[in-house]
Amino acid sequence: MAATRKDAAKLDAVDPLAQFRGEFDLPAGVIYLDGNSLGPPPRRALARLQQTADIEWRAGLIRSWNDAGWFDMPKRAGDKIARLIGANTGEVIVADSVSVNLFKIASALIARRRAPVLAVDADEFPTDGYILEGLAGLAGARLVRLKTPAIPSGVDVLVRSLVSYRSGAVADMRAVEKEASAKGAEVIWDLSHATGLINVDLRRNGARFAVGCGYKFLNGGPGAPAFAYIAREAAATLSQPLSGWMGHASPFDFSTDYRPAPDAARFASGTPPVLSLSALDAALDLFEGVAPPTLEAKARALGDLFLDICEPLGLETISPPAGMRRGGQIAFVHENGFPIMQALIARGVIGDFRAPNLMRFGFSPLFLSYSDVFEAAEAFAEVLKSEAWRAPEYARRGAVT
Amino acid sequence: MAATRKDAAKLDAVDPLAQFRGEFDLPAGVIYLDGNSLGPPPRRALARLQQTADIEWRAGLIRSWNDAGWFDMPKRAGDKIARLIGANTGEVIVADSVSVNLFKIASALIARRRAPVLAVDADEFPTDGYILEGLAGLAGARLVRLKTPAIPSGVDVLVRSLVSYRSGAVADMRAVEKEASAKGAEVIWDLSHATGLINVDLRRNGARFAVGCGYKFLNGGPGAPAFAYIAREAAATLSQPLSGWMGHASPFDFSTDYRPAPDAARFASGTPPVLSLSALDAALDLFEGVAPPTLEAKARALGDLFLDICEPLGLETISPPAGMRRGGQIAFVHENGFPIMQALIARGVIGDFRAPNLMRFGFSPLFLSYSDVFEAAEAFAEVLKSEAWRAPEYARRGAVT
Repeated sequence: MAATRKDAAKLDAVDPLAQFRGEFDLPAGVIYLDGNSLGPPPRRALARLQQTADIEWRAGLIRSWNDAGWFDMPKRAGDKIARLIGANTGEVIVADSVSVNLFKIASALIARRRAPVLAVDADEFPTDGYILEGLAGLAGARLVRLKTPAIPSGVDVLVRSLVSYRSGAVADMRAVEKEASAKGAEVIWDLSHATGLINVDLRRNGARFAVGCGYKFLNGGPGAPAFAYIAREAAATLSQPLSGWMGHASPFDFSTDYRPAPDAARFASGTPPVLSLSALDAALDLFEGVAPPTLEAKARALGDLFLDICEPLGLETISPPAGMRRGGQIAFVHENGFPIMQALIARGVIGDFRAPNLMRFGFSPLFLSYSDVFEAAEAFAEVLKSEAWRAPEYARRGAVT
Repeated sequence: MAATRKDAAKLDAVDPLAQFRGEFDLPAGVIYLDGNSLGPPPRRALARLQQTADIEWRAGLIRSWNDAGWFDMPKRAGDKIARLIGANTGEVIVADSVSVNLFKIASALIARRRAPVLAVDADEFPTDGYILEGLAGLAGARLVRLKTPAIPSGVDVLVRSLVSYRSGAVADMRAVEKEASAKGAEVIWDLSHATGLINVDLRRNGARFAVGCGYKFLNGGPGAPAFAYIAREAAATLSQPLSGWMGHASPFDFSTDYRPAPDAARFASGTPPVLSLSALDAALDLFEGVAPPTLEAKARALGDLFLDICEPLGLETISPPAGMRRGGQIAFVHENGFPIMQALIARGVIGDFRAPNLMRFGFSPLFLSYSDVFEAAEAFAEVLKSEAWRAPEYARRGAVT
């Protein structure tokens, strides 16, 4: 028998993360199932942003680079992320975008190889493929698009998402690293849909390189700076070509020669966007004391509850079923996905649509309750049963969702 | 005879930019001569940032990518900058940092050349050289560091600042472009110290490529996103390797193949830092209706006044003297530059120090009055005459200024 409103309330009563809901000021009348695309602002991120703008920028002016700690923020924020993904202090730097960081690490890894081969899964998040394509053209490398998860021999660098942006399926990091190691390949993990949600545990799983995003489950703000993880033992041997002054060992020497910082900081480039960075830095403090397995367990339980209530709707899902490891989202295939999602959004339940036919629902463990998920599933069922989505105002235009 | 307080007041009375001072909320007791390093916040940038965070991010959530126009902001802000630097609509995109944008354009220009040669002036802002060094290593190019301004034959791409970050000297863009054209070289102009200050006039001077910074004279906020200018006729033929989804012709198609946008937008990469970007976008509106020659004329007049009052101090300057074209700063060489600047900052006059021995004073035309400059010069003279800078609290530590 499907879960009831009462069952959801019972789960809320014993939710170890329940108190985090108060850390967010969500708009009234909205159940937000799109934290996998853009996390909502923690109250402390909004407060910190105002402090950074009104006090540090306006009153402190140039002095704030030192006095307010702007200069070290990319490392400090990186260390906060390190804890969440099983890395050490000094192994993560916050900088640029996922795209740019991916380029830097992949470039560094093929720098001294002759006719290198890059590989990416054919169904990977498209921009990861675009970036490797761009690098291949510049550096004389070859890009292979993989139709199956197996790593062909001859691959130097493989880029793979830990959590699929489409289905929410989770790769077996340890197994992939083992296979890559046997084949002589390095793996760069894209943790965009994993960080702040999944128990990533990079070092224990043998991962040496990763990039990830600050604006999804980390709730760092729209287009928040991204991060790069480079295992300590690898960092010192790698040269990345976007060698801007923030990656210099002594940036304020203004020396003509580039001397890279000893650790992951050498993967920084230009001056970071401090306003955006400060919001992310504050958002990261929310995770202090939270164990990643607790996040993963709740996200999965929220998703299981949603699947359970939606089960009678007979929808086709590409996401892992209850009982299997899953990221923070569930995706349904539906040819009318666009108007259905619009009709649902009009009822205050926000998910997203990805062309050509995917409806995605995200289950952020920090601000969602089981009751939220119950109500959202009920609204979803109502929209489908009533066929409310057939109303002309939900028809597809030149849509960005 | 040196200018008096009365002379300064007279200049203020006829200053066509005087009304802009009210657009800034500068801290009391401070004369800020460091807008060349970090511009202060326009009131509208602070207001816009709060709007973006509290309304668009918090209440609008993911919907704001469309509803609040986040998605098009890099182009919109780029078009505002285009007007200031003599470029056309669609020729400027706001994205990433100066370092990353420089890498993109230089990469695109050498992409199809065999054994390409990059060149940079030996005294150029160091990070520009670091980036070219990184690119050279990755793409098999050679980097030449020029000891004189002449362009040697065989150079494919030259990177040059329009305004020197050290002296404030202004290069002759038209002459350089003419020489480059004769030698078969392309020039990428670094406009970091020029935009929002100098009458750049890119197209009329024959320039096809440029990068620049949002946080100096544009007052866009600490680490504000940078920009890239690519002349329309060149953009369509160039592939840049940091080909992230924001540079795609149809980013929301999520197609596997990268199809670049037709204009400068193809030089965008990953998701932009929206909070930082929105502050810059609002700051740019301040320049609406202001003619670049008016900005340049006032900056130079402020600098001339400062030089005039400082003349009896007998200091050595590396900056262009009164009567010559000059950017927004004046730099004095002094072996005790560090403690002198600290003593001056303690008196509320903020300039900066650049190792090993440069004191720099910036003359932003929007928020400074001639009277400000008069008072600052008086304070400078007092610190030097009284030798107040010898007090132990001003001694050099591990300084970032």
